[in-house]
Amino acid sequence: MKLEGDDLLHLATGAAFLGAGGGGDPYLGRLLARAAIDEFGAPELCPPEDVPDTARVLTIAMLGAPTIMLEKGLAGEEVDLAIRRLEGHLGETADYLMPLEIGGINSLVPIMAAARLGLPLIDADGMGRAFPELQMTTFNAHGVSTTPLALTDDHGTWLLLEAPDAGSAEAMIRTVSVALGCSAVLCSYPMTGRQARECTVHGTLSVARDVGRAIHSGSRTVDPVAALMDLLRSTPYYAQCRLLFDGRVVDVRREVEGGFSVGYVRLAHLEDRARSMEIVFQNEFLLAREGERLRAIVPDLVCLVERETAQPVLADQVRYGQRLKVLGVSAPPVMRSPESLSIFGPRAFGLEDAFVPLEALADG
Amino acid sequence: MKLEGDDLLHLATGAAFLGAGGGGDPYLGRLLARAAIDEFGAPELCPPEDVPDTARVLTIAMLGAPTIMLEKGLAGEEVDLAIRRLEGHLGETADYLMPLEIGGINSLVPIMAAARLGLPLIDADGMGRAFPELQMTTFNAHGVSTTPLALTDDHGTWLLLEAPDAGSAEAMIRTVSVALGCSAVLCSYPMTGRQARECTVHGTLSVARDVGRAIHSGSRTVDPVAALMDLLRSTPYYAQCRLLFDGRVVDVRREVEGGFSVGYVRLAHLEDRARSMEIVFQNEFLLAREGERLRAIVPDLVCLVERETAQPVLADQVRYGQRLKVLGVSAPPVMRSPESLSIFGPRAFGLEDAFVPLEALADG
Repeated sequence: MKLEGDDLLHLATGAAFLGAGGGGDPYLGRLLARAAIDEFGAPELCPPEDVPDTARVLTIAMLGAPTIMLEKGLAGEEVDLAIRRLEGHLGETADYLMPLEIGGINSLVPIMAAARLGLPLIDADGMGRAFPELQMTTFNAHGVSTTPLALTDDHGTWLLLEAPDAGSAEAMIRTVSVALGCSAVLCSYPMTGRQARECTVHGTLSVARDVGRAIHSGSRTVDPVAALMDLLRSTPYYAQCRLLFDGRVVDVRREVEGGFSVGYVRLAHLEDRARSMEIVFQNEFLLAREGERLRAIVPDLVCLVERETAQPVLADQVRYGQRLKVLGVSAPPVMRSPESLSIFGPRAFGLEDAFVPLEALADG
Repeated sequence: MKLEGDDLLHLATGAAFLGAGGGGDPYLGRLLARAAIDEFGAPELCPPEDVPDTARVLTIAMLGAPTIMLEKGLAGEEVDLAIRRLEGHLGETADYLMPLEIGGINSLVPIMAAARLGLPLIDADGMGRAFPELQMTTFNAHGVSTTPLALTDDHGTWLLLEAPDAGSAEAMIRTVSVALGCSAVLCSYPMTGRQARECTVHGTLSVARDVGRAIHSGSRTVDPVAALMDLLRSTPYYAQCRLLFDGRVVDVRREVEGGFSVGYVRLAHLEDRARSMEIVFQNEFLLAREGERLRAIVPDLVCLVERETAQPVLADQVRYGQRLKVLGVSAPPVMRSPESLSIFGPRAFGLEDAFVPLEALADG
């Protein structure tokens, strides 16, 4: 499968939706992938089922503060350098690249990288959404080591790291990425083809493309939010999908803490003034609560969209007065396992609520 | 030349003196070197003049906060790992090791490393004293690249770094060493034998040993401070040596800023109450001023010693009420060149005074 026509536009929008408020700006992601495809040709998208057991797979992502990424962009050489450095250390060349997470930038940077290096890209990832920290992957939940990893910037700086565990690796690269000006390219989680098949969320690039296509299919006669929800219900993973709230933003608090964008959004219901919703975020939306009642909680997805167009709204883009719909979407089953919940369940974010699947929570 | 008998004790004390208030605790340095020599035998000390042009030379040092280094110590494996990783990246094995700086820890850790790896140690270094930052070396003043470098900790974490310039490398390893718990081993400035001869301060390990021996030679009949000053005056570099002040500590301010220990010491003269001296430090003592008059300024050495024993007192050890003598010592000529002053002259520390050689400043 190759990416053709409007696929890139759809994929960027869909990935921004599935990024659950994080994962970066889809416009930048699309520009980067578009430029690489124009210069090097579109990469082949490969289903994880087709990857040979012994193939060498590397994941590629951009790391840092979204606003700075947007300003600096990516030259491309730092992407090549990250992959080449890790290959050099491993003494093997990559057979496939794979995204680390879904997001407006981090689903598109791997497309850029695969185009530049002429490598096939595996249609899967390690989060099935976006998460703020490197250890929060299904790879890690299955015991794949985060390191060795390579980190690069656009000044030719590179760094190779081996750490005793995923948490230490995350702490190191977080502090390093700040020293690198809050924008870096990360090549990590080297794994085999077999691991790429067994330890990932499958099909997420093509699902993101389909989600984006549904969002863009909206018109005067077709409600784009309804089209989006219909599409999600047709997917194997994201089938539990609920409209949690239809409201107006009445409060946003946002602080930068430890390199993360942390805060909450409050919405007042458009029709029923007695109803209000609070959404907590750390880069991504983590939890939606209506009054005392929990409506959705991480790793399930809380997604905000413009109520008329279904365009995804990132946590960094939420502004007072916006009219938004809040959707709750079930995380893929592999992300709800006890191993996964121990790594990116509510407690990993310092939340007091336990995980309850979206479909087991009472409706509004 | 091999280190024998009390050489290690003398070297640790002398290195702590020449560390100019920084460079780490000589007791810890001596213990580390002693244990390695007992297990692996004493390394050969090699004059830089005898190193072949094409030899591969690596520098080795400990990096971090002195108090934490003292608590954690060094296992030894992290020293081996730092050297092996950089060798692996360079595709060459080290022929010689060399200290990065002079100091109670960083003159001794290279002895430990050379003993463990069975390598000769070059009797020279890149600072001729201690400095707080990695770019502040005569190597850098002569155009030797700081990177690639390797950084390790005692949990098996390692990191290889390439940076576009020495200042970037310093910023990166400073932030990384904090993430590593403020204690790490650094193998950096890979160079040739020729560079190790042309871009260094020569003979500093043997001079440190002689300085320490002079300090320890003090007795009831021999004033140890006078013995120390006599010895310094007999060396090729440190020959300008003045007693700047004889006083009691009446004030110490110390803060941790950006990973450095920053502050000042005030002394009142023991005999003339009208006289007082202020000494500014950033890990090392940078400047001594009596009233309005500058008495010594970096890169010349400002050194504090116990007035009765001439034992060096580190900036972190200065306490209210101590009776100390303040010595000003000329830096080696290579460290007073325009290139060197641009890298570690007063301006590099944010000081407003220009550099004036100690011997050109008026006496007290």
